[in-house]
Amino acid sequence: MKKVAIGIDIGGTNTAIGVVDRDGTVLVKDVIPTPTHGNIDSFVDDMTTSIRELVNAVKRLNPEIEMLGLGIGAPNANYYTGTIEHAPNLSFKGVIPLVKLLESNFPDLKAIAITNDANAAAIGEMIYGGAKGMKNFVVYTLGTGVGSGIVVNGDLVYGDDGFAGECGHMTIVADGRLCGCGGRGHLEAYCSAPGMKRTAFELLSKYNAVNSPLAKISFNDLTSKMIFEAAEKGDKVALEVFELSGKWLGQGLSITAHHLSPEAIFLFGGPAAAGNYIFRPTIESMETHLLPNFKNKVKILPSQLKQGDAAIVGASALVYKELEKKLS
Amino acid sequence: MKKVAIGIDIGGTNTAIGVVDRDGTVLVKDVIPTPTHGNIDSFVDDMTTSIRELVNAVKRLNPEIEMLGLGIGAPNANYYTGTIEHAPNLSFKGVIPLVKLLESNFPDLKAIAITNDANAAAIGEMIYGGAKGMKNFVVYTLGTGVGSGIVVNGDLVYGDDGFAGECGHMTIVADGRLCGCGGRGHLEAYCSAPGMKRTAFELLSKYNAVNSPLAKISFNDLTSKMIFEAAEKGDKVALEVFELSGKWLGQGLSITAHHLSPEAIFLFGGPAAAGNYIFRPTIESMETHLLPNFKNKVKILPSQLKQGDAAIVGASALVYKELEKKLS
Repeated sequence: MKKVAIGIDIGGTNTAIGVVDRDGTVLVKDVIPTPTHGNIDSFVDDMTTSIRELVNAVKRLNPEIEMLGLGIGAPNANYYTGTIEHAPNLSFKGVIPLVKLLESNFPDLKAIAITNDANAAAIGEMIYGGAKGMKNFVVYTLGTGVGSGIVVNGDLVYGDDGFAGECGHMTIVADGRLCGCGGRGHLEAYCSAPGMKRTAFELLSKYNAVNSPLAKISFNDLTSKMIFEAAEKGDKVALEVFELSGKWLGQGLSITAHHLSPEAIFLFGGPAAAGNYIFRPTIESMETHLLPNFKNKVKILPSQLKQGDAAIVGASALVYKELEKKLS
Repeated sequence: MKKVAIGIDIGGTNTAIGVVDRDGTVLVKDVIPTPTHGNIDSFVDDMTTSIRELVNAVKRLNPEIEMLGLGIGAPNANYYTGTIEHAPNLSFKGVIPLVKLLESNFPDLKAIAITNDANAAAIGEMIYGGAKGMKNFVVYTLGTGVGSGIVVNGDLVYGDDGFAGECGHMTIVADGRLCGCGGRGHLEAYCSAPGMKRTAFELLSKYNAVNSPLAKISFNDLTSKMIFEAAEKGDKVALEVFELSGKWLGQGLSITAHHLSPEAIFLFGGPAAAGNYIFRPTIESMETHLLPNFKNKVKILPSQLKQGDAAIVGASALVYKELEKKLS
């Protein structure tokens, strides 16, 4: 009997669904549109149909398959209540009891659980990735925003209300850059992909860097991948973007380390894929900010989840984590 | 049968020892000098003698007393290993196995445990104080330094190595004031009692405030209590010290809130005793820095532990917490 879990990644435009085995391999997957007009019932029906088709497809290959449960990653998801609450990038308004709705369609499953994508990434890292066997670690997801998932004593930290782990919104520059959330000087405004773009434009302006390849690209067109490519060619502006991003990120990671003294902090996502361009200055900066008895202890590591499937895989890991909790 | 726990607070100069009942009342207490020449064996002997005398004194009043265990608060204490490690303010060098040494003198006790004073304050708040029944909260201790104890899911967060909860050393001003630990811009350099003194001197200088009562006091003589008294008399410099200290502290608390989404953050210690001079600007600043879905949720509360005995009481709470863990 081979056991599998379903991972569901709900995004603003699309929802990806995959059948994932205990090793974190996606056996089959599907993508359905996320509704833009707020009809949750038809969305649950579409998900249900897709899940049943995926499970049937897997069973045709191996009739011994047992489906354990559904794990869902979604913005503004509340693990405690099984709901999505006031998600600004989704069309569903108010509080959506998604876990309850799915439970009525799948009454036989052992575990149906939801959390946000950064928490799902942390559980994925623990179940399938580089954090196997670790009891205290943190995952930072660097992308359009900066998210985080915190694990203490082997369990995800959800806090009093289910929304803990918003490290991306810590203030690192008082009265600094405007953040997407309306705050000022938050880490996300500096170390997300758009934050790196903002740094690039500040530096183009500071140095009047007309010869930088980045000077040919508009603010709306510049991506963090282009900054990486320019750095690979030795562009000084692009190289300094990574130095500064690492300086800010390292300051943020030192703050997380002082709170939690984790064994490791994993970096996941596009900017983190830039390797030592970002890891070296990040580690250097973090070490500078740390207390003497914290220095040279906390490992800063790249996520071991494969970027493409990570959201599905992370979400599916919730199922294995739930079953582990029920057994303990 | 009345059950009691011993609380031991090891400081640089003195060590306070008390017998504490389940309500957090200190029944009897004693103070012995902390050795200045590093002799741990004679220190353990002195503590043992003092503890036995205190317990005998309590038993004379009530022969039904049962002593459950010893809880110790000490700088650089490691809960996991039961040791004091390289404490800069104590004369014991290296790693001192204090719990093991005490266990050999008190083999019948059910629990002997050690942690640092801020963690002990957090457990004290949970067992006897304002955090009774809370599962997720943080205690900040404001004094000579800024310490913190973090509780997640009802347990203290010790991290991978036993040293988690050093929120006082989070960077809040990049390249800011020199901190006692050698770092720059740490919260402790702004919001400890000496940090408030530093702010007062910056403001005296900024405004050339020759008429402030604080202008008559030397840097080495000024205390946070004097700043409080000047504020009570309407001194503008003193009032601004509290505004600025609250601004920085609120920034720090918002960062803790974004990590952990606690039900409450308790403030303990001298500066926290200044009431709304510090609470109002702290809360205002924290709210400014928070994500929209974190606003107006996290309570900022004064510690309910009595200042004088809090260190002994907090340390004794470790015993009840240990016994709770053994039962679960």
